[in-house]
Amino acid sequence: MALLVAKFGGTSVGDIERIKHAASKVAQEVRRGNKVVVVVSAMAGVTDQLIGYCRSVNPRHNPREHDSVVSTGEQVSSGLMALALEQRGLNARSWLGWQLPIVTDSDYNKARILSIDITHLHARLEKGEVAVLAGFQGVTEDGLNITTLGRGGSDTSAVALAAALSADRCDIYTDVDGVYTADPRIVAQSNRLSRVSYEEMLELAALGAKVLQTRSVEMGMRYNIPIQVLSTFGNTVGSDMPGTLVTQEDETMENSPVTGIAHSLGDAKVTLANVPDKPGIAALIFGTLARAGINVGMIVQTASGKDQTTDVTFTVSRGDIERVIEIANADRDKIGFTDIQADKNVAKISLVGLGMRSRPGVAALMFETLAEKGINIQVVETSEINISVLIAQEYHELAVRALHAAFSLDQQEA
Amino acid sequence: MALLVAKFGGTSVGDIERIKHAASKVAQEVRRGNKVVVVVSAMAGVTDQLIGYCRSVNPRHNPREHDSVVSTGEQVSSGLMALALEQRGLNARSWLGWQLPIVTDSDYNKARILSIDITHLHARLEKGEVAVLAGFQGVTEDGLNITTLGRGGSDTSAVALAAALSADRCDIYTDVDGVYTADPRIVAQSNRLSRVSYEEMLELAALGAKVLQTRSVEMGMRYNIPIQVLSTFGNTVGSDMPGTLVTQEDETMENSPVTGIAHSLGDAKVTLANVPDKPGIAALIFGTLARAGINVGMIVQTASGKDQTTDVTFTVSRGDIERVIEIANADRDKIGFTDIQADKNVAKISLVGLGMRSRPGVAALMFETLAEKGINIQVVETSEINISVLIAQEYHELAVRALHAAFSLDQQEA
Repeated sequence: MALLVAKFGGTSVGDIERIKHAASKVAQEVRRGNKVVVVVSAMAGVTDQLIGYCRSVNPRHNPREHDSVVSTGEQVSSGLMALALEQRGLNARSWLGWQLPIVTDSDYNKARILSIDITHLHARLEKGEVAVLAGFQGVTEDGLNITTLGRGGSDTSAVALAAALSADRCDIYTDVDGVYTADPRIVAQSNRLSRVSYEEMLELAALGAKVLQTRSVEMGMRYNIPIQVLSTFGNTVGSDMPGTLVTQEDETMENSPVTGIAHSLGDAKVTLANVPDKPGIAALIFGTLARAGINVGMIVQTASGKDQTTDVTFTVSRGDIERVIEIANADRDKIGFTDIQADKNVAKISLVGLGMRSRPGVAALMFETLAEKGINIQVVETSEINISVLIAQEYHELAVRALHAAFSLDQQEA
Repeated sequence: MALLVAKFGGTSVGDIERIKHAASKVAQEVRRGNKVVVVVSAMAGVTDQLIGYCRSVNPRHNPREHDSVVSTGEQVSSGLMALALEQRGLNARSWLGWQLPIVTDSDYNKARILSIDITHLHARLEKGEVAVLAGFQGVTEDGLNITTLGRGGSDTSAVALAAALSADRCDIYTDVDGVYTADPRIVAQSNRLSRVSYEEMLELAALGAKVLQTRSVEMGMRYNIPIQVLSTFGNTVGSDMPGTLVTQEDETMENSPVTGIAHSLGDAKVTLANVPDKPGIAALIFGTLARAGINVGMIVQTASGKDQTTDVTFTVSRGDIERVIEIANADRDKIGFTDIQADKNVAKISLVGLGMRSRPGVAALMFETLAEKGINIQVVETSEINISVLIAQEYHELAVRALHAAFSLDQQEA
C-alpha cells in the first residue's frame, strides 16, 4: 500500500466527461489499496477566460484581485472532482489552499510555498477519505489573501504536497504519456524515456519540454519525490509504471551521453552592433534589462576588433522584444552602440544528458552534424549537462531529427 | 456623510460593461462623501451553470461541495468589481465570506448567518477604502467550509452587513426601479411605491413580488435598516431617493387600506376528496409532507357532509406536485381519501396593506370586484395585513387589473 499524490492537468479535467474519467483513474488506485490525494488544475480554458475578464475590467494589473478571481478555476474543478469520486462510491472532500492551509509568501501571481499544514489531511486519509486539493493556490501568512503559484503551478502544488505528506510518488496525469527523447511531432523515431533524472528533467523543462513545470521538478529533487508523468487518456494507472519516472540519477542512465533533445521557438535574438569594448558596458546593458524584469537567455560577445568595439548578442523571450528595443534605444548614447538588430526567426536546440559530463566530444559531434546539414550556428551555450545552440528557425525540425539520429536516440526497429 | 451598503444583483453585474457601469454608481456615492461597502451577486447565469456542472458530475447532491463550487460565482464578480472600482480611481478590495469572516451555521445551501466580524472592514473604511463583499456566502464556525445562503442570498448578505456596520441605508440595485402597487407588465396604471413598510414588503415578497428576498426584509426589519430598492440602469444613485424605500411604518402609509397587489403563478392546488372527518387526519397528511420537505401554502377543508367525510384542499409549489401525489397515494389507505385531484392552472392574488387592519370591508370589496368579472374564488386565506385568493390562472391579469382599480391604486392622470 502506498500513499500517492495524483495531479490532473487542465485537459484531463477539461469537461464533465473527462472529470469522470480522471475519477475512474483515482478509483483504480484506491481499489489497489493505495491512499490517494488528488490535485486538480482548472478546466482547460477557464484560467484564460478569467484572466481576460480581469484585463477587460481594468487593464492595470492588481495582483491580489487577479489571484482571487483566477483561483476560482481550481476551486470549481476540485469540488467537481470530489463529486465525481463520490459518484464512484469513494469518500471524498475538496480542499482549497486556505483551508489546509498552504501558506505562501505574498508575491501574488507567482507566490512561493512556505509551509503546508497536513494535520487535517492526515486524519482524513487514515479514515480512507480521498482528499482533492485545488492546485495552483495558497494563502498569505495572515490567512487573509488568496495567492496563486504562477502558470503551471498545480504541478508545484502536487509535488509540494507529496513532499509534505512524505508520499511514495507523485503522479502527474497529463495529455502526453511521458517525456520523450525529442518532440514526437518532429521526430517519429523518438523514444519515451522510462526514467529520467531530476537534473536532466530540469534542463529539458527549462529548455522547452513543456511536460512539467520547472519549479515542481526542483521541488521533487530537493525532497526526493519520484514524479511519474503519464497520460490520463491511456488505460493504465500510475502503479503500472508507464510514462516517465523522474527520479534520482542511477547508473543505468549513463548508457548514452545524451538523454534527450529539447527545442524552443520562444526566443528572439538581439544584437547590439559596435559597442565600445570597455568595462561596465555589459553591466549597463543587462542591468537595465534585469531591472525591467526581462530575462536574458544566451549571451555572446564577439572579440574586439581594431576599432575597439564589439557586437553583443543575446536572447530574450519573443514577447519581450519590443520592450528590449525600446529600453536599449533609450540608453543608446550611454551604451554607445551604432545599430540594433532583432531576429525572431530563431530556434534553440539543446542536447541534455548526465552522461555528457564524462563523455567528451558531444559538442564536436553536435557541430559536425549541423554543419553536414548546412545549418549555421549563431550562438552556443553550455552547462555541465546541456549544450544549446541558436539556429535559424526554419531548420529546427531538420536539426532535431539529425541530432536525434547522430546521438543514437532513434528507436530501434523491432 | 453616510455609511451605505450597495448591493448589485446578477443582471447588474451580468457582463464586463455592466460591472463597469455599476462601479460608476459606487463612484458617484463616494464622490458625495459617502463611505460605501459593495455586495455583489454572481454574473447572471453563472450560478445556474455551476449548479448544472455539479448535477452532471453527480446527480446525488453533496451540499458541502455544491457550496464550494457555486460560491465561486460571487468570488469572481467581487474581484472584478474591485478592479472596476480601481479603474475609476477608487481604492477597493474584495472580501470573501471566509475572509471577513461571515460565520454561518452548517446548513449548507441555505445557511443562516450567525455573526459578521467587521473589524477589518471598519479599519479600511476609515482609510477611505471601498470594500467589495462576495454575496451569498459564508463560512462554518470551524472556519473550514464555505457555505451559501440560498437563492437570492446576496440580498441577505447586504442587509446583514448593513446591520453589522450600523449602516445608514442598504441600497439594492436591481433591474427594476422599485416596488410597484402591482406588476407593471400587467397593470399599466401601476404606481411605484416611494415607501413601503417592512411588514408589507415581507408579505409582498412572500406572495410573489420578486424584488427582494424575504429573509433580507426580515433582517432589515429586525435591525431597522432602511432598504432602498433602485434600478442599476437608471441615471440616479441611492442618495437621490428614487426607487422604493423599505422602512418602518409611518402615518402617511395608511392613506389607503391596500398598498399593493401581489400575484403568483408558482402554486398548484391539490384536493383530497372524501377524507374521513376525524381527528389526526390533517396531522397525518401535512406531517408527512413536512417531513418530505414540502412547503404547504393555503389549506382549506370543507364542512363535513352527511357521510362524515370532507374534502381537503391545499396549495404547494408547482415543482413539488408530482412528489405530493406520490406521497399521498402511498398513504392513501391510512388517510382514507377516495380521489386526488391536482390543478396547476391556478393563480394566487393577494392584497397587502397595513391599512387593512383598521379598515373593514376590504375582503368584501375584493370578493365583489372578482364576482363582477365572473371570477370564481377557489380558496381564501387572510392574515392581519393580507387577503389572498386562489383563482383560475387564466383570469389572473384581469383580476389584478380589476382589483387595482377597485382599491384606487390606479395612477392619476396628470
